[in-house]
Amino acid sequence: MQLELMQRGKFITFEGSEGCGKSTQIRRFVDHLKDCGLEVLTTREPGGTVVGEKIRHLLQFDQEAADMTPESELLLFAASRAQLVRSEIAPALERGTWVVADRFLDSTTVYQGIARGLDLASVKAINAFAVGETRPDLTILLDLDVEVGHSRAVAASAGKEDRMEAQPMAFFHSVRQGYLDLAKEEPGRIAVIDASVSIDEVTAAIQAEFAERVGEVGA
Amino acid sequence: MQLELMQRGKFITFEGSEGCGKSTQIRRFVDHLKDCGLEVLTTREPGGTVVGEKIRHLLQFDQEAADMTPESELLLFAASRAQLVRSEIAPALERGTWVVADRFLDSTTVYQGIARGLDLASVKAINAFAVGETRPDLTILLDLDVEVGHSRAVAASAGKEDRMEAQPMAFFHSVRQGYLDLAKEEPGRIAVIDASVSIDEVTAAIQAEFAERVGEVGA
Repeated sequence: MQLELMQRGKFITFEGSEGCGKSTQIRRFVDHLKDCGLEVLTTREPGGTVVGEKIRHLLQFDQEAADMTPESELLLFAASRAQLVRSEIAPALERGTWVVADRFLDSTTVYQGIARGLDLASVKAINAFAVGETRPDLTILLDLDVEVGHSRAVAASAGKEDRMEAQPMAFFHSVRQGYLDLAKEEPGRIAVIDASVSIDEVTAAIQAEFAERVGEVGA
Repeated sequence: MQLELMQRGKFITFEGSEGCGKSTQIRRFVDHLKDCGLEVLTTREPGGTVVGEKIRHLLQFDQEAADMTPESELLLFAASRAQLVRSEIAPALERGTWVVADRFLDSTTVYQGIARGLDLASVKAINAFAVGETRPDLTILLDLDVEVGHSRAVAASAGKEDRMEAQPMAFFHSVRQGYLDLAKEEPGRIAVIDASVSIDEVTAAIQAEFAERVGEVGA
């Protein structure tokens, strides 16, 4: 063992619409990082803290809250994220732990901002306020045809659609396009991965992008 | 009875720190408006909708959520308000109902923005996003010495301090000064009322300001 200066952890986010295989790929990616000897924290949004999990419930499963306005929805996502960043993500990165997030800023920009037609300058200001200086070093965007993704997601949830899955298809088309537009704006941060191929092929593509952009990792 | 064009209701907010007598004065003020033949909706913040009441509980009484960050707190207040404005306040004003709100925008600016030291430009952007075009026609600010107000509030809550009342006194000094500064910036909207005198005197002062600024009301 070598005595060395503590190095800040890397912050990697996964984005993509319903059914793109995010959960599976995150699990594999995190296993790989751990095999390399890294400490890894995984987070999901909304949620990941006491406050965040209560917000998650309100957003996804509370039937009484079904008439929620898009503005309120966006602010609740931001509240959950503000808590997660300050109480979990930022301290982990500080102590050298890597953080892999299942959704982060881009989800809010795309789902609440673009797809619901909210004012993008306001969405940006709220996002910035919520996360402060804590920005991803790399974002893996799993891109998939909307119909394929939606039918995968509905099959996986076995008929129990949550609020998001119950949206009309046009919503998911806006989501996909919104993500691709973001990737064009920030190609240095966002890597677009074709998620229509086999699970192993997607994993290999993620590994390749990661190796090229972040390089060798390990203790 | 006359057939007339529907006139938009007036939107009046009450602000002030703990123990200033807001609840009592709002009750009297609303009774007066109703005696004049007006339809009146009263709201409180956070809360007033299904989503808002759940947020209220999280903000005020959830012990598990005690480590909430100031950013998350502000965004939760904004989420509650965004819902209240769009599902209750704006539709009421449209149909000619008057709305009297127990706290609104200025509370967030002062409690979460100024007193907690958050970036005021961000607070303003978030406030604007939350309420859209729905702004108060008149704001009654009940101003009171901090120590007097705090001891009144603690006495009234009979030992059951909520998260807000458990703040250090310096917090409440910033709140009072923050309110007074806002009133200087917007004297046309915000009327400062001395809340240190008797309940009847405060009521009379509110009526006088109201008559001068809004004028005669009635069916």
